[in-house]
Amino acid sequence: MSSYGGIDLGGTKIQTVIVDDEHNVLGSARRPTPTTGGPADVACEMAAALCEAAKAAELAVTALAGIGVGSPGTIEAGNVSSARNLPGWEGTFPLAAALETALGVGGMPILVGNDVQVATDAEFKLGSGRPYGTLLGVFWGTGVGAGLILDGKPWTGRGGAGEVGHMVIEIDGARCTCGRRGCVEAYAGRAAMETHARELHEQKGHKTDLFKLMKDHDRTRLTSGIWARALRDEDKLATHIIDRAVGALGAGIASAVNLLDVESVIVGGGLGIRLGDPYAKRISEAMRPHLFADNRPPDVQVAALGDLGGAIGASLLVETGVARTAAAS
Amino acid sequence: MSSYGGIDLGGTKIQTVIVDDEHNVLGSARRPTPTTGGPADVACEMAAALCEAAKAAELAVTALAGIGVGSPGTIEAGNVSSARNLPGWEGTFPLAAALETALGVGGMPILVGNDVQVATDAEFKLGSGRPYGTLLGVFWGTGVGAGLILDGKPWTGRGGAGEVGHMVIEIDGARCTCGRRGCVEAYAGRAAMETHARELHEQKGHKTDLFKLMKDHDRTRLTSGIWARALRDEDKLATHIIDRAVGALGAGIASAVNLLDVESVIVGGGLGIRLGDPYAKRISEAMRPHLFADNRPPDVQVAALGDLGGAIGASLLVETGVARTAAAS
Repeated sequence: MSSYGGIDLGGTKIQTVIVDDEHNVLGSARRPTPTTGGPADVACEMAAALCEAAKAAELAVTALAGIGVGSPGTIEAGNVSSARNLPGWEGTFPLAAALETALGVGGMPILVGNDVQVATDAEFKLGSGRPYGTLLGVFWGTGVGAGLILDGKPWTGRGGAGEVGHMVIEIDGARCTCGRRGCVEAYAGRAAMETHARELHEQKGHKTDLFKLMKDHDRTRLTSGIWARALRDEDKLATHIIDRAVGALGAGIASAVNLLDVESVIVGGGLGIRLGDPYAKRISEAMRPHLFADNRPPDVQVAALGDLGGAIGASLLVETGVARTAAAS
Repeated sequence: MSSYGGIDLGGTKIQTVIVDDEHNVLGSARRPTPTTGGPADVACEMAAALCEAAKAAELAVTALAGIGVGSPGTIEAGNVSSARNLPGWEGTFPLAAALETALGVGGMPILVGNDVQVATDAEFKLGSGRPYGTLLGVFWGTGVGAGLILDGKPWTGRGGAGEVGHMVIEIDGARCTCGRRGCVEAYAGRAAMETHARELHEQKGHKTDLFKLMKDHDRTRLTSGIWARALRDEDKLATHIIDRAVGALGAGIASAVNLLDVESVIVGGGLGIRLGDPYAKRISEAMRPHLFADNRPPDVQVAALGDLGGAIGASLLVETGVARTAAAS
């Protein structure tokens, strides 16, 4: 029986898991992503979070058969460049090598993949995507990312596919965090929604309890949990902004479906997981008026692996990587 | 040396070709698509247009090794259902069987495929798409259709992929010919542009020579040629409507590229071919502000096979079909 490590490196948190051959989670840990320092500091925190998960699994990190990492940014052979939302990570950093050193696991396979794509792979192999050959995984969180499985295989294009968050749903529309206008993420990303809420509240005097809730819960951002709570309390501004986000996701995802005719859409990410089934249903309804083949809409479901999906997906990289090495030798 | 027939069934015209083993065009013909009657009338006209091409090639239709057809609508084993823009074709019609009878070619392979996909395949194998493994073919004409080649193979999803024309670029935007709102085709399709021009001219008093040009050239619609002429004359309304179409195509195609990260975009269709290189360049520029990976935009080129691409692509179905039959036996 072998065990594998998986690390999901997010802009807000680092999630780690230890899994066995059958993908059962033996242990897990979560730490906040450092907001200051640089890539080396982030790598140390990732190593610490993996140790913690191994401890929970009652295993030594050195006993693992390999470690997989899901990371933002551009990834090439264990090196990560221009990782958005991570501190001081504009350049290229040898993440796999840094983890190898920090964990003292020289020679162990450490594989780095795209965070959104590994989470999509995990849903495809182990989660809500299992019944389908073709799916779009949409991760609704700080930003809006997506991964594609076409005919049972990940589709990454020239390495940059899956930017559903930057599909245009309004020419000259709202300013996006990417600097462009009218992208899905400009309406539906948690970061853009927070900026919009702050403007409407502070500059235009719209009433809301969002920022009070944030302070009461000792948060520095409007987390998915804060949004969920405000919606439950029927906060008018929060409801308005979330409705707008659902409309944007509906139009963007429907456009993707019109182009690719996928069987299924899996909704994950911080907000997707937190808001759950009722919102997957709402997104499905918001897609409906824009679907060209509206007599056979794709199934829309919440990511079954929840918050652990990214880390479990990262651990899957080891199997694939080991298999690839074996086949090549 | 074998010869093949290819028929491109469009909403406006039926284009036929006879090609040899090496895809050289030995003869071609073009006839207007009947606007009245039903599928049987259309099939007769298709048969007549193929005879005409065979005559130009100095060949008997019975001497062909097979015939391929590119058709709109839903296609299943030679039967065509709900072909938009064709007269009385709401139901299912056995097109391959009808052509077999009309041409007296019992037993000859007659293969029917999707019009846009066969045109994309032709550009991929023989035209502007040859240098690429991954491309989006956009056909800008009466409507806006598209075909996809991913990793060297056509991608059709569950049979309905490629609807770039119905990607949403403006939530609650202009009414589309499909009945929905804000689709690319609502701004860029020739049919929608004509409706828009008529409204602005007849109801809002905008000046234009578009309809005068139409009458002078004995046309009943604003054809691609009429648009091209009006643009050359710097007709203000025509320029405005075409600019809007280019903006819509830019946003829609950029969205598709953000999702799929294709290497190349091939622009064909009546308007695409007629307006040519300068407009492929304009579409490429209109995509730029919306491309997420804006440091490596895909190449954008005009379809090299021009008006014959659809019919040549249809003829390619025979090779593939014959190969498939051979492999299966």
